[in-house]
Amino acid sequence: MAAVKSISLLGSTGSIGQQTLDVVASFPDRFRIVALACRSSAEEIISQARRFLPQLVAVEEREAAERAREALGPEGIDVVAGWQGITQCAALPDADIVVAAVAGVAGLLPVWEAVRAGKRLALSNKEPLVVAGHLLVAEAARSGSSILPVDSEHSAIFQSLLGQRQESVARVLLTASGGAFRDLDEAALGRVTPQQALAHPTWKMGPKVTVDSATLMNKGLELIEARWLFDLRPGMLDVVLHRESIVHSLVEFIDGSVIAHLAQPDMRLPIQFALSYPERLPRREPPPDLAELGALHFEPLDGQRWPCVGLARKAIEAGGTAPAALNAANEVAVEWFLREKIPFSAIPGIVEHALTVHDVGVGESVEELLAADRQVREMLEKGAAAWIS
Amino acid sequence: MAAVKSISLLGSTGSIGQQTLDVVASFPDRFRIVALACRSSAEEIISQARRFLPQLVAVEEREAAERAREALGPEGIDVVAGWQGITQCAALPDADIVVAAVAGVAGLLPVWEAVRAGKRLALSNKEPLVVAGHLLVAEAARSGSSILPVDSEHSAIFQSLLGQRQESVARVLLTASGGAFRDLDEAALGRVTPQQALAHPTWKMGPKVTVDSATLMNKGLELIEARWLFDLRPGMLDVVLHRESIVHSLVEFIDGSVIAHLAQPDMRLPIQFALSYPERLPRREPPPDLAELGALHFEPLDGQRWPCVGLARKAIEAGGTAPAALNAANEVAVEWFLREKIPFSAIPGIVEHALTVHDVGVGESVEELLAADRQVREMLEKGAAAWIS
Repeated sequence: MAAVKSISLLGSTGSIGQQTLDVVASFPDRFRIVALACRSSAEEIISQARRFLPQLVAVEEREAAERAREALGPEGIDVVAGWQGITQCAALPDADIVVAAVAGVAGLLPVWEAVRAGKRLALSNKEPLVVAGHLLVAEAARSGSSILPVDSEHSAIFQSLLGQRQESVARVLLTASGGAFRDLDEAALGRVTPQQALAHPTWKMGPKVTVDSATLMNKGLELIEARWLFDLRPGMLDVVLHRESIVHSLVEFIDGSVIAHLAQPDMRLPIQFALSYPERLPRREPPPDLAELGALHFEPLDGQRWPCVGLARKAIEAGGTAPAALNAANEVAVEWFLREKIPFSAIPGIVEHALTVHDVGVGESVEELLAADRQVREMLEKGAAAWIS
Repeated sequence: MAAVKSISLLGSTGSIGQQTLDVVASFPDRFRIVALACRSSAEEIISQARRFLPQLVAVEEREAAERAREALGPEGIDVVAGWQGITQCAALPDADIVVAAVAGVAGLLPVWEAVRAGKRLALSNKEPLVVAGHLLVAEAARSGSSILPVDSEHSAIFQSLLGQRQESVARVLLTASGGAFRDLDEAALGRVTPQQALAHPTWKMGPKVTVDSATLMNKGLELIEARWLFDLRPGMLDVVLHRESIVHSLVEFIDGSVIAHLAQPDMRLPIQFALSYPERLPRREPPPDLAELGALHFEPLDGQRWPCVGLARKAIEAGGTAPAALNAANEVAVEWFLREKIPFSAIPGIVEHALTVHDVGVGESVEELLAADRQVREMLEKGAAAWIS
């Protein structure tokens, strides 16, 4: 009988958080929840806590935390407020695994704490690795923490690299579905609305990620993550379009072999694997039926039409604080688009502008990286008039 | 600097043998040839021996062996004749790896000797595992021998299983190109000639294997091999048609994940991997370019139209001497077809007949299995008038 693993779940009320709880509920003799954290959804986290009975609940917003404390305190569950609360969940001594599914760069500090505490980190949140990959990888090596990816592409790469030698790897190819607008021409791209951007063809995700998927910045951010997760040189990373979202990524080896991971597009699979690794646990969903699918299609990425992948490459090559600047500018631009202040097609230009004017620093500390993030946001907000019509 | 591995190559003048020498010649600081063996091609093996300077050469046919001895003796290379000579190469103390690329059931005895001697066996020859898989696997466990596959499908499975746990495997899917006649209807199948059968769309192979590929018996034999190579229950094995011969096989896991191996259809890749494992060595041929290919296609296998896979399954389930009977009947039927004695479409019926009338024995020894093989051949030759027009 395998031991029960204790899980601290940061971002429990979001899409990945909810699916993580689905997985945990499917294997009550393998996983249990010891902590839950969210930003502000008091009702949702109260209901989750009553079901999964963690020892600790953290809610960032003070008022929501107070509501949760009133509801859960009498049931013997501690409730803490503010970012300190989230960080406390991230470093909880009783947690074997920390699942980080917090939205945006806000995830960096708790992730940093989990890594410092030597936890197994099941990382869904892109921004911590994008902004501070070099620091997190070095700290994980020191503390004995391991970082397991919780998204389909990086989980695919992780699984394709099992049993392989680092020196045998030639190139890693991330697959991209192409997002909601893959078939629109440039003129039509200028006119798309946030509502259209949020209708992704295969994956159900939050609004920020769905827009990133439509601009392909999502894939650019994933290139940066892959660089750190798998210790790859920037030239070893590339993207191929694959509409069906069945092949989740591929690894090419120096002998001409390619290993690929295929699965139904269902986030619960990479979540479950990050929790169960090195074991696999059974799932009800069958693997994709290739004979029924008939064909898997691949296309080259048109770097002219989708410039965000190229911008991410530039940020990787510049290093230091450049990926933090890329990420901050993208968060601002996506926010502006969702609030209908700029057209969809203006997003890459704003990111490019920020990268061009950003004064790249070494990025020696989390503080320096977060300062670069803030500096780019302030710079863009100040000059917003130039972009916003 | 890695140590140089010493290789004894059985079947050096055939297609796999020649390609093995190509690989060895590409890495002179990694591999060297200590023995070469063939059936009768004296001139070819003399020329190979002069180039690769083995300590031992074996030629089965006595006259050809004599010619080789005259040519190579003065150069200090020992030449031995007969099956004993081949067996001597298979168990050569100085060989780290024995490559078995002998055609037909004739490969069983030398393969058995290599396994008994605890060698790493790079196995191209299908028949030893088909006929005596249960004995070879048990003997390898005893002697410390390891059996590495040298064909694209099993090498793909082997590579897809690296770093995975046996209990996580749900199913193995062998891909089949469908052979030369995949698009013919049943009437047309009855009229195909040996010349047509030998024009395989993607792989360049010997005549027996090419006909087996056209009947899909090749895939049936591969199912039997996979059963023993990877310790799989018969129900865990299946076949999917894939015309492009880029995905060389797939492994499905209990969590719904699939790991696939892709590569250009080039036998030198699985040969090289069986020699270099666990390392990978660089090759000049690039991996397949998926964006350029555009699509990979998959179709279900029509078991009615291609009955040989189902016959192989029956033989697996019957066990004991049944796979030996299947293999012997198929060798006889393919030979008859190549000599234009029977139509192509008669091959499965002959195999089915042999399986039906064969009295399945336990198959406790190599001798018993070879006796079953002979018995089926004799039975068919005696009743040949019923089949041959």
